[in-house]
Amino acid sequence: MAKPRRGIKFNHRNGNGYSSSVDGRRSSFSDISEAASQPGSPTTAGNGAEQLPEVSEYEKKKQTFITRSIWTFVMIGAFFGAMFMGHIYIIAVVTAVQIVSFKEVIAIANVPSRARRLRFTKSLNWYWLATTMYFLYGESVIYYFKHIVLVDKVLLPFATHHRFISFMLYVIGFVFFVASLQAGHYRFQFTQFAWTHMALYLIVVQAHFIMNNVFEGMIWFFLPVSLVICNDIFAYICGITFGRTQLIKLSPKKTVEGFVGAWFLTVIFGVGMTNVLMRYKYFICPVNDLGANIWTSLQCTPNPVFIAHTYNLPIWFPFAKSFSMAPMQVHILVFATFASLIAPFGGFFASGLKRTFKIKDFGDSIPGHGGITDRMDCQFIMGFFAYMYYHSFIAVYKVSLGGVIETAITGLTPEEQMELVKGISKHLYNQGVIAEGVGYPFLSP
Amino acid sequence: MAKPRRGIKFNHRNGNGYSSSVDGRRSSFSDISEAASQPGSPTTAGNGAEQLPEVSEYEKKKQTFITRSIWTFVMIGAFFGAMFMGHIYIIAVVTAVQIVSFKEVIAIANVPSRARRLRFTKSLNWYWLATTMYFLYGESVIYYFKHIVLVDKVLLPFATHHRFISFMLYVIGFVFFVASLQAGHYRFQFTQFAWTHMALYLIVVQAHFIMNNVFEGMIWFFLPVSLVICNDIFAYICGITFGRTQLIKLSPKKTVEGFVGAWFLTVIFGVGMTNVLMRYKYFICPVNDLGANIWTSLQCTPNPVFIAHTYNLPIWFPFAKSFSMAPMQVHILVFATFASLIAPFGGFFASGLKRTFKIKDFGDSIPGHGGITDRMDCQFIMGFFAYMYYHSFIAVYKVSLGGVIETAITGLTPEEQMELVKGISKHLYNQGVIAEGVGYPFLSP
Repeated sequence: MAKPRRGIKFNHRNGNGYSSSVDGRRSSFSDISEAASQPGSPTTAGNGAEQLPEVSEYEKKKQTFITRSIWTFVMIGAFFGAMFMGHIYIIAVVTAVQIVSFKEVIAIANVPSRARRLRFTKSLNWYWLATTMYFLYGESVIYYFKHIVLVDKVLLPFATHHRFISFMLYVIGFVFFVASLQAGHYRFQFTQFAWTHMALYLIVVQAHFIMNNVFEGMIWFFLPVSLVICNDIFAYICGITFGRTQLIKLSPKKTVEGFVGAWFLTVIFGVGMTNVLMRYKYFICPVNDLGANIWTSLQCTPNPVFIAHTYNLPIWFPFAKSFSMAPMQVHILVFATFASLIAPFGGFFASGLKRTFKIKDFGDSIPGHGGITDRMDCQFIMGFFAYMYYHSFIAVYKVSLGGVIETAITGLTPEEQMELVKGISKHLYNQGVIAEGVGYPFLSP
Repeated sequence: MAKPRRGIKFNHRNGNGYSSSVDGRRSSFSDISEAASQPGSPTTAGNGAEQLPEVSEYEKKKQTFITRSIWTFVMIGAFFGAMFMGHIYIIAVVTAVQIVSFKEVIAIANVPSRARRLRFTKSLNWYWLATTMYFLYGESVIYYFKHIVLVDKVLLPFATHHRFISFMLYVIGFVFFVASLQAGHYRFQFTQFAWTHMALYLIVVQAHFIMNNVFEGMIWFFLPVSLVICNDIFAYICGITFGRTQLIKLSPKKTVEGFVGAWFLTVIFGVGMTNVLMRYKYFICPVNDLGANIWTSLQCTPNPVFIAHTYNLPIWFPFAKSFSMAPMQVHILVFATFASLIAPFGGFFASGLKRTFKIKDFGDSIPGHGGITDRMDCQFIMGFFAYMYYHSFIAVYKVSLGGVIETAITGLTPEEQMELVKGISKHLYNQGVIAEGVGYPFLSP
């Protein structure tokens, strides 16, 4: 009774085809590195060397290193390429990451031998992904492209009843799930249900906030992402240089020195990077035109956080009376600190999950790197933070054209809308913006 | 290898103190009813009869029946009492249900023998409940009591940064969870994490929608709740009277005849009940005064769905030319249908969960009835539906023409005002309100 799970025989197969049978042993790091060094991942067959069993250990490591390096550059290239080609391409990249991560995470909880007899489990997982994405994308599209959606005859009912439609789609999935419950499979089916919902919440919803950051301006996407990547690299460098004290048992290679050193360097990197990015409207302007890219111009009145402000120094300060700084330089300290001290816990969480399922990687989507989820684990919580921080402290809620159109169409009667058109037309005529003839039809009843 | 979970020895203890050791057997209904008839639930010790082992089977059943009946009346009394005493009392009842249900559901996944060594697991569950409730209650208070919250100096920063504060509270819990992960307990800890999140989502969030329904007007709370209760009773009556065909394997006692008959009766009940409730402002008015009760007056301009409207009948109709009806009488058909055909799946879901954990009830909060969750399983999804339906089809978002014009003139640039006129003109043209020629000047650039 004391340790009821000791007797569990747990057989697990992940996407890599790596299979292990662990009988009640405590999971430890040596288990995993042992398993990781086993050869023969059939899905990375692109590497000819791995198919030959007589190839030496050195050759294999060299091959892995080359593959990993090539794909590192491919990823960096694709990332910067997409960013300069325009917001719509970054949205596509984030969507792809979202779907592949979801696929990887739901795959690790699947037990093929049992699932084979349950026809609908897999389809249901994808149905839930589709419903969630329909809901989230709809919310964003309605929020950011109100002025297009609401004046379109076909799209209007979808916009005004979006949440209800999404809810009913979800309810259909729920009823289908309950109807497909089969005696003897309850535990498996409920586990799948819970697991899929966790994946939706931890990956799909959080990735969606990253997408909303793109809409608010490229800088709100690029800064959080690059802060996390750089913090990771800095932690590695500081760790191998000064590292002595272990930080957390979950990841034995992480050290306190690496953690603190990386924080310091990330703050410096953030301040410098912000200083550069702030100069470009392509980065600081929200998207009003999805055809924008680095060569076309994107125009807006910059958010006040990007405008330099003169701060007076206290009278006892020796060298200067005042200094000038954009408020964004203060905000970036918070972003860099979150990226250094909190975001890594997203990675530790993912490590813990991998330990639980006794797998090395979430998948093999990126040759030499493991799964997409392995590279993204700290990004999700960082993107969520950036979204919340932006909307709480930085966003300026100007009156938006889309907002006024929405209010008028959903809240006013047709007669009142008519009055609105007449009223504004009259105002524009009074201001000399439009000539008499043009607005006239609306001025008379 | 084919059936890896066959060898699991699963020892489970739930809140009832009922303990079973099932070695790979398939769960079946007989298992549960067998277990259910075991005596000796130590926590219902209020019943003296249950403490004496020599009492006959008949005496015990009689005692159970009496306890159950007494508590049924206590519940009905408390429900109607709270409803007439005022909205704030119903809010208190829903909050209590929310917390007790959460407690019951997280308790069934707890394995005490393991948990004892992990100090923080329980505290973390409650921390997450507190964070979620802080977030949800804050949202409601800010939404419904803007006029109070926004003019208060102390509350203002909490209102304007509410989501960020909630997010950071959640992040603190998340970091604490990751830091508290212990080797050898990963599987248990992650299961707890997922389970708590499912409970938060399925119970706390959904119960919260029920609370928002109360704010929108007592009828939006009372109708869904009573439809579900009556449907349950009707299904039982129709089932024992006509029932022949089994509906779903999960609940062997449910029949198709009961299901369909109850639908019919629930629709009739709903139409009648709506007809009565619609006459009282206490039921149809939203809360603007938390001190309101059935004896004080609650005033408002009724929502148009409660106002009778005359509908013309087709010319071939023999007896009458038109009839008069409030639109609410059509909406109630949808509510009654959802309560009859979809809401029961919430109950089937709960039954499935109980099968999975081989327990009879979620707890023993209500003597003779089992847990609160057992009585509420269909209410959560119904309340969520009522909320979504109300906001999509019934709520009137009152906007004043003057307000929109003021916003447009003071907040938009002349170019945007021009766009506004074009957009609304296009919408009016799409809706057939204005002819092509009239709107034309504004439709061309």
